[in-house]
Amino acid sequence: MTKLRVAIIGASGYAGGVAARLVATHERLVIAFATSDKLAGESVAVHLGLPRARLTAAQPQFVPNAAALDHADACDAVLLATAADVSMRLVPEFATRGKQVVDLSGAFRLDMRAYPRWYGFDHAAPGWLDRAHYGLPELFGPPAPGAVVANPGCYPTAALLALAPLLRERLVDPRGIVVDGKSGVTGAGRQSGDAYAFAEVHDDLRAYKVFTHQHTPEIERGLLRMASGVELTFTAHLLPINRGLMTTCYARPLPGASAKRVAECLADAYAKTEFVRAVAPEQVSLKRVVGTNFAHVGASADAGMVIAIGAIDNLLKGAAGQAVQNLNAMNGWHDAMGLEHLQRVSP
Amino acid sequence: MTKLRVAIIGASGYAGGVAARLVATHERLVIAFATSDKLAGESVAVHLGLPRARLTAAQPQFVPNAAALDHADACDAVLLATAADVSMRLVPEFATRGKQVVDLSGAFRLDMRAYPRWYGFDHAAPGWLDRAHYGLPELFGPPAPGAVVANPGCYPTAALLALAPLLRERLVDPRGIVVDGKSGVTGAGRQSGDAYAFAEVHDDLRAYKVFTHQHTPEIERGLLRMASGVELTFTAHLLPINRGLMTTCYARPLPGASAKRVAECLADAYAKTEFVRAVAPEQVSLKRVVGTNFAHVGASADAGMVIAIGAIDNLLKGAAGQAVQNLNAMNGWHDAMGLEHLQRVSP
Amino acid sequence: MTKLRVAIIGASGYAGGVAARLVATHERLVIAFATSDKLAGESVAVHLGLPRARLTAAQPQFVPNAAALDHADACDAVLLATAADVSMRLVPEFATRGKQVVDLSGAFRLDMRAYPRWYGFDHAAPGWLDRAHYGLPELFGPPAPGAVVANPGCYPTAALLALAPLLRERLVDPRGIVVDGKSGVTGAGRQSGDAYAFAEVHDDLRAYKVFTHQHTPEIERGLLRMASGVELTFTAHLLPINRGLMTTCYARPLPGASAKRVAECLADAYAKTEFVRAVAPEQVSLKRVVGTNFAHVGASADAGMVIAIGAIDNLLKGAAGQAVQNLNAMNGWHDAMGLEHLQRVSP
Amino acid sequence: MTKLRVAIIGASGYAGGVAARLVATHERLVIAFATSDKLAGESVAVHLGLPRARLTAAQPQFVPNAAALDHADACDAVLLATAADVSMRLVPEFATRGKQVVDLSGAFRLDMRAYPRWYGFDHAAPGWLDRAHYGLPELFGPPAPGAVVANPGCYPTAALLALAPLLRERLVDPRGIVVDGKSGVTGAGRQSGDAYAFAEVHDDLRAYKVFTHQHTPEIERGLLRMASGVELTFTAHLLPINRGLMTTCYARPLPGASAKRVAECLADAYAKTEFVRAVAPEQVSLKRVVGTNFAHVGASADAGMVIAIGAIDNLLKGAAGQAVQNLNAMNGWHDAMGLEHLQRVSP
Repeated sequence: MTKLRVAIIGASGYAGGVAARLVATHERLVIAFATSDKLAGESVAVHLGLPRARLTAAQPQFVPNAAALDHADACDAVLLATAADVSMRLVPEFATRGKQVVDLSGAFRLDMRAYPRWYGFDHAAPGWLDRAHYGLPELFGPPAPGAVVANPGCYPTAALLALAPLLRERLVDPRGIVVDGKSGVTGAGRQSGDAYAFAEVHDDLRAYKVFTHQHTPEIERGLLRMASGVELTFTAHLLPINRGLMTTCYARPLPGASAKRVAECLADAYAKTEFVRAVAPEQVSLKRVVGTNFAHVGASADAGMVIAIGAIDNLLKGAAGQAVQNLNAMNGWHDAMGLEHLQRVSP
Repeated sequence: MTKLRVAIIGASGYAGGVAARLVATHERLVIAFATSDKLAGESVAVHLGLPRARLTAAQPQFVPNAAALDHADACDAVLLATAADVSMRLVPEFATRGKQVVDLSGAFRLDMRAYPRWYGFDHAAPGWLDRAHYGLPELFGPPAPGAVVANPGCYPTAALLALAPLLRERLVDPRGIVVDGKSGVTGAGRQSGDAYAFAEVHDDLRAYKVFTHQHTPEIERGLLRMASGVELTFTAHLLPINRGLMTTCYARPLPGASAKRVAECLADAYAKTEFVRAVAPEQVSLKRVVGTNFAHVGASADAGMVIAIGAIDNLLKGAAGQAVQNLNAMNGWHDAMGLEHLQRVSP
Repeated sequence: MTKLRVAIIGASGYAGGVAARLVATHERLVIAFATSDKLAGESVAVHLGLPRARLTAAQPQFVPNAAALDHADACDAVLLATAADVSMRLVPEFATRGKQVVDLSGAFRLDMRAYPRWYGFDHAAPGWLDRAHYGLPELFGPPAPGAVVANPGCYPTAALLALAPLLRERLVDPRGIVVDGKSGVTGAGRQSGDAYAFAEVHDDLRAYKVFTHQHTPEIERGLLRMASGVELTFTAHLLPINRGLMTTCYARPLPGASAKRVAECLADAYAKTEFVRAVAPEQVSLKRVVGTNFAHVGASADAGMVIAIGAIDNLLKGAAGQAVQNLNAMNGWHDAMGLEHLQRVSP
Repeated sequence: MTKLRVAIIGASGYAGGVAARLVATHERLVIAFATSDKLAGESVAVHLGLPRARLTAAQPQFVPNAAALDHADACDAVLLATAADVSMRLVPEFATRGKQVVDLSGAFRLDMRAYPRWYGFDHAAPGWLDRAHYGLPELFGPPAPGAVVANPGCYPTAALLALAPLLRERLVDPRGIVVDGKSGVTGAGRQSGDAYAFAEVHDDLRAYKVFTHQHTPEIERGLLRMASGVELTFTAHLLPINRGLMTTCYARPLPGASAKRVAECLADAYAKTEFVRAVAPEQVSLKRVVGTNFAHVGASADAGMVIAIGAIDNLLKGAAGQAVQNLNAMNGWHDAMGLEHLQRVSP
């Protein structure tokens, strides 16, 4: 059986590294090549600890990022784990060459007008924004053949999975929504600055990018597909762990939003999905999802507030795992192919 | 100079242990005796790692909890680090005997009617509730001589320090307030159940007691002293650390509540305090306060929301440190006596 | 293709839980049933977070441990993750019934005479000790068909992989060997005592069972298969992490044991193995192996000492992963079947 | 009472920061000035979270490192928390000017001949090496008035406290000693490289500087003051914690070295010290010492080996706390002055 040849662009970052490992252990995928300036010339298998038997006979080495397009002929699909401004330029190049494209950056997730404020640049390929499919399949369906996939951000994945069904079913007020997010350090990508030194992060907790986090408009845009009038406040906190992300979401109840009703709403919304499970809100925890592509969500309510909590592994359901789900959908494969063997880390 | 003889009731718990160490290193205090069923007969100094020179010549041993009142004559003041239902019965006994009393439990923090719902018992000493002083001195002043002090809970201390000045100055709407709390495991007291085993808590995060945490009415009651019409939602999360607590608070802005104005409000409120410092919200972090009696608070705003964040060491400013502040006030000593030498843990 | 039906005895412990997940995602294995007193009646798939599609149509529930033999007909093979005294009685029962047996306890790893001292009981089935195969395949080969497999302990796996080739090649003195071990808490199995409470273990390190750890005679016995005259001192330390184990081994060099030579010795010993990789000693780290079935080993030497370091995931190569390797070997399958998709946890 | 004015050179590092806090809370010391290139011009009190009341009226700011000698007149004593090559040049300058000098680097701890190999430079002030007092007071006594103090390294402090009495009493063989060390990340000083990023260190363990750690000759030299013929192997490991250090030491027993005898040897050696406590080896743990200036040591033996374990807070007894002990001794004050109020971090 011929395998789909996948290029990993930006494979020395955290999400890129996980993506490469998922591709290498997927029964229908094989790594075509991987790019990294830092690791150019090194063996992909050795550096990433990949099972060698699953790579191509040629045993690929890392190539410099700038050479990505030169090797385009060698691949059928591309996973980009690059910065948004890099993806913004590379995605149209690969798509024009007929490659299946899944972009893990934020370059194709928002309206053109949002980029200067939230990403600090004018979008260089605005024509591609409408053609991009926001790849959160449990809420927005599979990508159409030939679509460019904008793979969702980590906080938006958890927040939208927890909140969107409640908005869609008119159980919560779209105004005044609060999303309080907490993430391990790999959510920020590979960082070498002092702020991410072990001695600074260990045993600590702090909020960051208060009122300015770029996932704010992305969550808002996803919620607006469910209801109009959404007003959102989002805050991110840095947890002293490596992997795992939780969003605790607060919204005012609309008539009928009892504790029982909101729990049932989530259970019904995801009953047929492979990866999203509705549980009691106190049972939503990082340890049940880290290492897997699962998202756990849970909701409850009292007279004045609905609380909905979502938890994911930010590098899997929040990045590379969801990218593989999107690749599976683009090729007509089962949603869980290459992801069902993942084991949670917690004993 | 004669030292005040302090009894520590419940000294084998986390807060009780820290209280004992603070008393032992305080220049005007000395441990009269300490109680613990588990440690009865052992040396207080050895078990708690206390500097021996600072204890009385007699080198006290732990006595059983049931013997606490038998030793009452040996002390001038009492710190109770006991469960609420135990404190409820002991506090009046010690107070009636003329002892200075600081109770670290929730037994004297609420209205009588709140106890069945939030603490699961009818209050056995309701007459003492009005006489108890809620000991958060930066907001509610020092205790009067002879008052019984209800030492505030950990989440309430952080939440009230961050929010109360904003409510008092009419900068935020008292309705629809959200407090998202995160605490290390010592906030729950010494626990031996499976839920607190290392392998369950490490690298994890989860919400607990959703809509049912007993600190909810305590925060609400504190805020109601600042403004009427308060509606509050509070959620607690368990962090995979030992010490440190943060509350991220959300409230709708009232006219005039700019980012600059809310920051100034906190700075002004605490400018003259020894232990509360107003900083930017992204600079509020556990590592700046853990090991010390400091609380750090910070606030900002956009058009739709005010965010106010507070951080403390839950065992110091959130428990034993604040108890020593209250003892200092009751005896007319400087607010920081016995607390200024505390060193933060973060390097 | 018919799958081998595997029973997991003691599936609510850490190693048993991981074993169940490995079986459920293995292409030639299926869970026949799983035992747990605590979880009897609950769904195996839900509790362990298993991919449901990989279980049998019947969707097994946990059965009580005492019912294990009653269900024996339903299985072809048994993985026992039980205490040594329980395994000692169950293993002969299953073996007599013709089942393939892999025992993860220490019940069949030592000489009969060692059990009173190191395990605290007289061995009840000494006749089976000689028939048991010590299942460390990279050193001692695959089990013969029909053998009972004594799956090695976690410390012995890491220590023997690092040291045995050096002894076999006469590069180190068998006398005066020191093994300094460090392990995460899951190495001790599921524990609910105070000593394993989060607040006790977090940020701590301590030695345990000094001179009395039951893995001491097991390491010694493995080394004695390589050289006579072995004298061993082994110390275990508890690390504040969940998974991962390292052994730092010290042995005096024999003539010819240069830094280069000892490194080559390990490289040669494992060049053809699937799971053991020789690297520089400073590159042996938990993060490269945790989440996988790999063992990393490295050695160096100066004039007075050889240092050899080994690292594994104590629940995989140190327990359940190695058990699956042994099952693979007993059935003539490839060494890595069902293990090659495992992803390391470190980003 | 006039206070001794102390300069902190290199106060933005971990040890320098802790030293500054200890000086600021010491009843007989006051910060004269502190140096840091990175923080030049900032307030010392604000940056280090110092109690403001304890600083001088002038509220010192950081001055650039290069200006250290320009301010020499403002101080009576100097604590240097600088790199060894910097201390090598500054120490003679301050000593010549009549200042009390405690150097926390390795610049004055070894023989001249050791520097090229272990520190990578020829010593520029060899004449001062003999005049330097190795400041481990429990083993080598207090510094003479006017001495330059070479404050011991962190690993040497723990290893020597555990081993030296056993060597002195002829209970262990000086040949073939193994010291297996484990330290939190602050032992390496403030590091910004990728190797010390949170995501690299968290949940990991690795050996470093195998056979090349600069503390090897320092431990050896200390042991040689107790017995001739010492042969030592030392290995350091990086723990995923911030503070705390343990050394597990192995030495062959000489006649008479029973378990009881070696335990008594340590108990006797430290019975009269303020900061070193002999306990059972399994009770030596980081949590009992981190946050304090205590060292805990414990030893046991079987027929073939003596194991001696030592634990300290690497920034206190292993650096700044011991420096204050040395300052106390130079001024004729009590050993524990300014250190007895330190609280352990573990609850």
